[in-house]
Amino acid sequence: MAPKALDYESLNENMKKVQYAVRGELYLRASELQKEGKKIIFTNVGNPHALGQKPLTFPRQVVALCQAPFLLDDPNVGLIFPADAIARAKHYLSLTSGGLGAYSDSRGIPGIRKEVAEFIGRRDGYPSDPELIFLTDGASKGVMQILNTIIRGDGDGVRAMVIINPGNPTGQCLSEANLREILHFCYQENLALLGDEVYQQNIYQDERPFISARKVLMDMGPPISKEIQLVSFHTVSKGYWGECGQRGGYFEMTNIPAQTVDEIYKVASISLSPNVPAQIFMGLMVNPPKPGDISYEQFIRESKGILESLRRRARIMTDGFNSCRNVVCNFTEGAMYSFPQIRLPPKAIEAAKKAGKVPDVFYCLKLLEATGISTVPGSGFGQKEGVFHLRTTILPSEEDMPAIMASFKKFNDEFMEEHEDHRGYSRM
Amino acid sequence: MAPKALDYESLNENMKKVQYAVRGELYLRASELQKEGKKIIFTNVGNPHALGQKPLTFPRQVVALCQAPFLLDDPNVGLIFPADAIARAKHYLSLTSGGLGAYSDSRGIPGIRKEVAEFIGRRDGYPSDPELIFLTDGASKGVMQILNTIIRGDGDGVRAMVIINPGNPTGQCLSEANLREILHFCYQENLALLGDEVYQQNIYQDERPFISARKVLMDMGPPISKEIQLVSFHTVSKGYWGECGQRGGYFEMTNIPAQTVDEIYKVASISLSPNVPAQIFMGLMVNPPKPGDISYEQFIRESKGILESLRRRARIMTDGFNSCRNVVCNFTEGAMYSFPQIRLPPKAIEAAKKAGKVPDVFYCLKLLEATGISTVPGSGFGQKEGVFHLRTTILPSEEDMPAIMASFKKFNDEFMEEHEDHRGYSRM
Repeated sequence: MAPKALDYESLNENMKKVQYAVRGELYLRASELQKEGKKIIFTNVGNPHALGQKPLTFPRQVVALCQAPFLLDDPNVGLIFPADAIARAKHYLSLTSGGLGAYSDSRGIPGIRKEVAEFIGRRDGYPSDPELIFLTDGASKGVMQILNTIIRGDGDGVRAMVIINPGNPTGQCLSEANLREILHFCYQENLALLGDEVYQQNIYQDERPFISARKVLMDMGPPISKEIQLVSFHTVSKGYWGECGQRGGYFEMTNIPAQTVDEIYKVASISLSPNVPAQIFMGLMVNPPKPGDISYEQFIRESKGILESLRRRARIMTDGFNSCRNVVCNFTEGAMYSFPQIRLPPKAIEAAKKAGKVPDVFYCLKLLEATGISTVPGSGFGQKEGVFHLRTTILPSEEDMPAIMASFKKFNDEFMEEHEDHRGYSRM
Repeated sequence: MAPKALDYESLNENMKKVQYAVRGELYLRASELQKEGKKIIFTNVGNPHALGQKPLTFPRQVVALCQAPFLLDDPNVGLIFPADAIARAKHYLSLTSGGLGAYSDSRGIPGIRKEVAEFIGRRDGYPSDPELIFLTDGASKGVMQILNTIIRGDGDGVRAMVIINPGNPTGQCLSEANLREILHFCYQENLALLGDEVYQQNIYQDERPFISARKVLMDMGPPISKEIQLVSFHTVSKGYWGECGQRGGYFEMTNIPAQTVDEIYKVASISLSPNVPAQIFMGLMVNPPKPGDISYEQFIRESKGILESLRRRARIMTDGFNSCRNVVCNFTEGAMYSFPQIRLPPKAIEAAKKAGKVPDVFYCLKLLEATGISTVPGSGFGQKEGVFHLRTTILPSEEDMPAIMASFKKFNDEFMEEHEDHRGYSRM
């Protein structure tokens, strides 16, 4: 019989070729082990709430009230919600046309895009235009929209440069000088720049604060500041809010022609609208409680609690990795990942080959089976031949962290003992 | 200077070719007029809450509590939330791994996919497998996932048949005999069937209840029931819940090979996860309050109120259109649209040509300018040469409906008077 439309041999070949290491072989094996009853520590993806981080109270109060607008008329509402959360819920509901149950404009609610533009203006010192900001179901959806716009067909490479700052998977923060160099390069090579800046709140050292690509571009002045096409992405999933499950984000366009913006709008309209609750999270993230607001102190206390703990965890993890045999790791300056290099001895590479696995996948699978720690092999991000890494998040709870690192060390050092005839590598 | 990656001339040509009538020229013009201060009645898209429909209380209570889980420990929570909403919120939170802020599995939360499978089993009388159900950010995202799977490249037509039942834009309900014919045809022609069944709750006549394509397929028995590849779609946006802004839906696969399901899962994982709050809405929709529950009576009262009003509105609208000169309209048996045929006289077609517009677009633009009623021209859905329709929703509030239909009649009859030398068409 002829193959059917949804038989494997009939499928889109590009789809079959796709690989996504973050939820690839390692993740699938981890899910299987979890089903079999093994305790798994999912550090393959930046998903803070799944590892026990509590949501911030104020934004959740506001969105809960927006979901249940009938509470705003309840005489008892003040017993469990503070007045500023009630006022803010009324504010956001007034920006919608029909509350959270109505589709918004396909670019997102105009009033919230205005709040985003004001935030960008304050952050960079250059005004931002709400008409050039589109709200999205998370940053990845925004990236897909832009890539669909740029890529014309099979024959195209991507003519554009992508930076992730602060960085994923390496956790570095770019300096102003780095960003200038990148922008100069884009100008010379006539490249668009996609700036994934979803970790802009996650900074764990004071020496180098986050600077947006847009600010540096504007600082450089004409002609560069008028020429380089830049699209910047942000989200409620990352930062220290970690509201991944809500799926909210935005992208902002700089130096993109109006006709292109119209085309992006047209295509966005086929998806009708980004989800409305997450648009409100985005509004709250760019416009949090201010000094003097009833909820301000609690908000600051909770925020500091999370950020300071992340900073300590970044340190525990880096130090932990660096105490292991044949492992070296840079400090996580920002974002939420640690990316240790694993110096696999020839015998381990040989064993991996025998098992039909890429060497770092082999190592990570062994780590998973032995400890339940679910990581992403460095090869998933593209690596130089013969260099091996793994990516893990710094998100396990601070209490659990020493035990996790001890369990890693035990596994790693035994693995190296087994696969190395003598202690080969010196510490670099 | 060479064109840049995001200049209009560099963009993906397929993207430029895309047209989406529901948010096309008419919608853009309506948005402009609204900005200028004109009152617009947006009936171009099925967006009930935007036209004043109130959300159902119980599901909103549950999701509000899930957003603010700290309320579950508040001694005053019982003052503004009923006990069954509290219990249900605890139930759904227990199914997540980290509440609404954590990414779920890319297919959706397993416990909610199980509830969906149980609902399908009760509805059709045949068990459904949760592993073949994927939760999505609304039905349109699900449709895109499946089309991306089926279409291999530029050279491909779609090898598949699509039905919308109850129908959009025509509002018809398919009988069992209709569905059997369609399935026989798919079997003969080796076509996959995509069943858009998002309006399955919206039925406005008792003679013909909704029957799912899947039930008819299973009733037909082997070999057909084992052979036809069927994907069925549902959503929280439509039905009488109308929770469009939440962006929740699912698709269920029948007779799709496991290897294909794995590929769809892999690609879905790149988008990380559908938004979690809407997954809970989906769970609530397939598992609403039961007799004996505290919230049951209120839930039934609210549900009946909306459905009975929709039924009356369908009648007012059909009768209203049929009272207009050169307009004929079938009764809206289901879904949420009315699709009157507008018999445009030759002089109107001539005038449209002069204005450089497709005739029904010309008519709909005139209607918009005169009355503020924003509709979708029938040509946006594909039409026979010389036959003209428009699509409107039946969603304006029942109180507003008589005035809207009077305003339509006044416009239409004047338009016909202007463009017709004598009363040319007889009523069919």
